[in-house]
Amino acid sequence: MADSARQLVDRLLAGNIRAIARSISIVEQEPEAAGDLLRYLYPHTGRALVLGLTGSPGSGKSSLVDGLVSVFREQGSKVGVVAVDPSSAYSGGAILGDRVRMQDHATDPGVFIRSMATRGHLGGLARATNDAIDILDGAGYDPILVETVGVGQDEIEIVKTADAVAVVLVPGMGDDIQAIKAGILEIADLFVINKSDRDGADRVHADLDYMLALAQHDDAPRPEILRTAALANEGITELDEGIARFLEGAGKRRHGQRRRDRARSRLLAVLGEQLLALVQKKVLPGSALDELVGRVANREVDPYSAVQAIVERVEVR
Amino acid sequence: MADSARQLVDRLLAGNIRAIARSISIVEQEPEAAGDLLRYLYPHTGRALVLGLTGSPGSGKSSLVDGLVSVFREQGSKVGVVAVDPSSAYSGGAILGDRVRMQDHATDPGVFIRSMATRGHLGGLARATNDAIDILDGAGYDPILVETVGVGQDEIEIVKTADAVAVVLVPGMGDDIQAIKAGILEIADLFVINKSDRDGADRVHADLDYMLALAQHDDAPRPEILRTAALANEGITELDEGIARFLEGAGKRRHGQRRRDRARSRLLAVLGEQLLALVQKKVLPGSALDELVGRVANREVDPYSAVQAIVERVEVR
Repeated sequence: MADSARQLVDRLLAGNIRAIARSISIVEQEPEAAGDLLRYLYPHTGRALVLGLTGSPGSGKSSLVDGLVSVFREQGSKVGVVAVDPSSAYSGGAILGDRVRMQDHATDPGVFIRSMATRGHLGGLARATNDAIDILDGAGYDPILVETVGVGQDEIEIVKTADAVAVVLVPGMGDDIQAIKAGILEIADLFVINKSDRDGADRVHADLDYMLALAQHDDAPRPEILRTAALANEGITELDEGIARFLEGAGKRRHGQRRRDRARSRLLAVLGEQLLALVQKKVLPGSALDELVGRVANREVDPYSAVQAIVERVEVR
Repeated sequence: MADSARQLVDRLLAGNIRAIARSISIVEQEPEAAGDLLRYLYPHTGRALVLGLTGSPGSGKSSLVDGLVSVFREQGSKVGVVAVDPSSAYSGGAILGDRVRMQDHATDPGVFIRSMATRGHLGGLARATNDAIDILDGAGYDPILVETVGVGQDEIEIVKTADAVAVVLVPGMGDDIQAIKAGILEIADLFVINKSDRDGADRVHADLDYMLALAQHDDAPRPEILRTAALANEGITELDEGIARFLEGAGKRRHGQRRRDRARSRLLAVLGEQLLALVQKKVLPGSALDELVGRVANREVDPYSAVQAIVERVEVR
């Protein structure tokens, strides 16, 4: 594996599209092989700017990403997009349509778009996404846009360590700005009110201003609020400028901390994943796990006592 | 601790409200102490029916839960509600308002409502939520409604092992049924189109029918689609009946499997959490973790090699 991993990394560093796609599939589907890959790749990473976009389903993030990609392409950048979507088998297909606009860029070799289809392995999503960012980074894509659908815990965890985090809201979702409440207020470096040509944009804007004023607890700069109508291609240049202002200001001061936060969350994610795999293999091989699960389900043993008996067998030298 | 844990469990089993609240705080904030509590509690659990409700922010889940609570109260049940919300410090407060209707039940001793405010610890949310369900179960609440905001990976993980899972949609969120795509199609035992007095309800209904027809790959029964307008108190009784039909039919056959799935995900969550805590304490005490994080952030070592060096020090007897 090590040899082929090295070859694969050499090819992806040279910008080979197939090698990039293959590498992302490996980190998504073969966590054991991801280590070999990242070992060779890692020294070549850390250059790209990582921009996070998050918001509720239906907030038009894909269209925003699409617009930003166009702006970055005009500036001459190679752009990577990682869309994080705890998706069903049915998503991503034509019937859903929300990737349609992104396909504008489908034939542009200066754009690499990948939807992370990981599901089922708790925690693995964040790890695989960070690995995918490194792969695109090593392949010379810069900036890299990370789009997370939803407002879940994992999804927040993934975007919050980006160099700049944009939280996308839309008018009229719910009767007030419920969409804000899911822990995203404090991760936003800037807010985007998309679909701002709709009724209710002023209200969302005013509510958001009010909440930010309440949340203002020190002399930290308040995140900017920008308005876009991505489908009409309005406000995208201004969004790019807003991101640039953040990166020149508060973002610059926070850069090192963000990078350390990202390193910490990756380290702990990989460590947790590997410890669990190791112990499961040694202590609960084959049907032993199923048997223990059955005992827990039948209330013969509680999960904490079951775990304690396992952890007592673990020694750290 | 063990003695006081036993006393606390005795009090919560007797239905003492303060003991319940204190116990949930413990499983949320003191993972080390949660084990003692659950050890005494666990044999007294497993009786309550667990109903999961999930959907996007703004879909009116809280109003639906409120309506269901009223229906269950009329039937004479003591009802528990666990709202899972990776919330900011600002959520839950009066300014957001979405818990307002739930406060209808705030003075009813037959209803216990708790919002899980866990954030920041990846994975801990699912564990703490399952522990909270056990606490309410042991205290005699049945059914227990679990409401998860958002459509994130963790949030899906939490609701999908409920005895019945209702996925809530609303008309007009996004231009199509984007809200469905985030991996929730296959976890739904039934779909609820809430705010169905709004324009677009027929379209969501038709789109959903179409997607379910596409997804139909075997002779598994297709989830029912129900319509509600929770704020107008319409369709709630029908929803209760729909849940009952599911539980009498497909839900009955799946009951054992769901319970085993829940036991498995709890076991692995607790195991992962404790292994990571143990190894972190032994291998990376104090500032050692920060130092390693710094080396990873500076690209001196990749996260996989760093983890490998740690895992090599772990032995399983």
